[in-house]
Amino acid sequence: MKLFYYPGACSLADHIALIEAGLAYQLVSIDHEKRTGDGRDFLALNPKGYIPALEMDDGVVLTENQVILAYIAEESGKLLPEDRLLRWRTLEALAYMSSEIHGAYAPFFRDFPEPEKQRAREKIEKAFALLADQMGDKAFLISSEMTIADCYLFWVLMVAPRSGVDLPANLLNCLKRMRAMPSVIRALEEEGLS
Amino acid sequence: MKLFYYPGACSLADHIALIEAGLAYQLVSIDHEKRTGDGRDFLALNPKGYIPALEMDDGVVLTENQVILAYIAEESGKLLPEDRLLRWRTLEALAYMSSEIHGAYAPFFRDFPEPEKQRAREKIEKAFALLADQMGDKAFLISSEMTIADCYLFWVLMVAPRSGVDLPANLLNCLKRMRAMPSVIRALEEEGLS
Ligand SMILES: N[C@@H](CCC(=O)N[C@@H](CS)C(=O)NCC(=O)O)C(=O)O
Ligand SMILES: N[C@@H](CCC(=O)N[C@@H](CS)C(=O)NCC(=O)O)C(=O)O
Repeated sequence: MKLFYYPGACSLADHIALIEAGLAYQLVSIDHEKRTGDGRDFLALNPKGYIPALEMDDGVVLTENQVILAYIAEESGKLLPEDRLLRWRTLEALAYMSSEIHGAYAPFFRDFPEPEKQRAREKIEKAFALLADQMGDKAFLISSEMTIADCYLFWVLMVAPRSGVDLPANLLNCLKRMRAMPSVIRALEEEGLS
Repeated sequence: MKLFYYPGACSLADHIALIEAGLAYQLVSIDHEKRTGDGRDFLALNPKGYIPALEMDDGVVLTENQVILAYIAEESGKLLPEDRLLRWRTLEALAYMSSEIHGAYAPFFRDFPEPEKQRAREKIEKAFALLADQMGDKAFLISSEMTIADCYLFWVLMVAPRSGVDLPANLLNCLKRMRAMPSVIRALEEEGLS
């Protein structure tokens, strides 16, 4: 499998998941002209033009972070709880982070005017308050075991400080704990970010 | 199961799916004070405060539109293709509509300044162009059979005209065809919208 990525972008979640899942993968970067690191036209592979995108060995390209994460979990049989309710809670948390948090970071990534940034901070902090309640004092968001929700959580937490978003104490601790995990250290290293 | 909804809001997707899936359900509205139609405090049931939310018979409350739709499909064994790739394509389309289209409608629902509305229209129209390509001349987005992706598609299409968003011809036809489906007619009627 090939994971199309930008260093430190939301594809980091999938990168960490691939490592944790123990699946074989190749990282392929995209340049400013949307050429892939292996010499192809990214827009021809993925008309959406954004990452993450996962190319399977038969050439099928799958997009959307939460769906790629679910695919990695299904392929590997890891990172998704067996318990049915916890599995729904994992998928629910992914959808929540995607729709209510990731999208809300746009004003920072694209440098929108300050009032839009402030509105975004409020929205994101409200969403993190809810996730903080959900996590409580568990090691991970859904249970004591890591799930694909934690892979995405790591990324939305990692970009918070530089966006001026305040994090509740337990989520800040989670960010610190995850930064020390071998899979996360390796993913950051492989993206040239350590 | 109880579906918490506002008339004509994005919960319409789940409402249509419940009808198509043939599952028993009860519709419960929410008033301006966040009291539910069956006399409870909605925020206590769902701290996110938004709809859709699905309350199962054992009291568990599930949120996030695309996850509720996937739950309805799993419960009923309907509205998700058996073919593995088409199943991933269905989930991918749901995640795409949620992250790239639904969220982008916010400036219209909350009456943001016109420049933000214009930026949103451009984003939404770009996303619809991609969905139009994906649909081609099929009866539904993923295949000739209806899936949960079509339930959500109906709603994001339905709110386009009133937001000044132009629709490609095949999606406009899809909107018209779906409006004539018994499940859609019944859902709109039950929400007091026909
Ligand atoms: N709906 C997509 C959004 C992905 C996304 O926002 N990707 C960003 C990086 S975090 C990107 O590639 N932006 C650059 C671009 O759109 O060209 C998903 O959930 O995967
Ligand atoms: N992330 C949620 C968003 C749901 C949403 O935006 N719901 C809207 C109606 S379409 C709503 O309830 N807005 C009123 C509110 O937030 O109080 C999902 O995908 O289900």
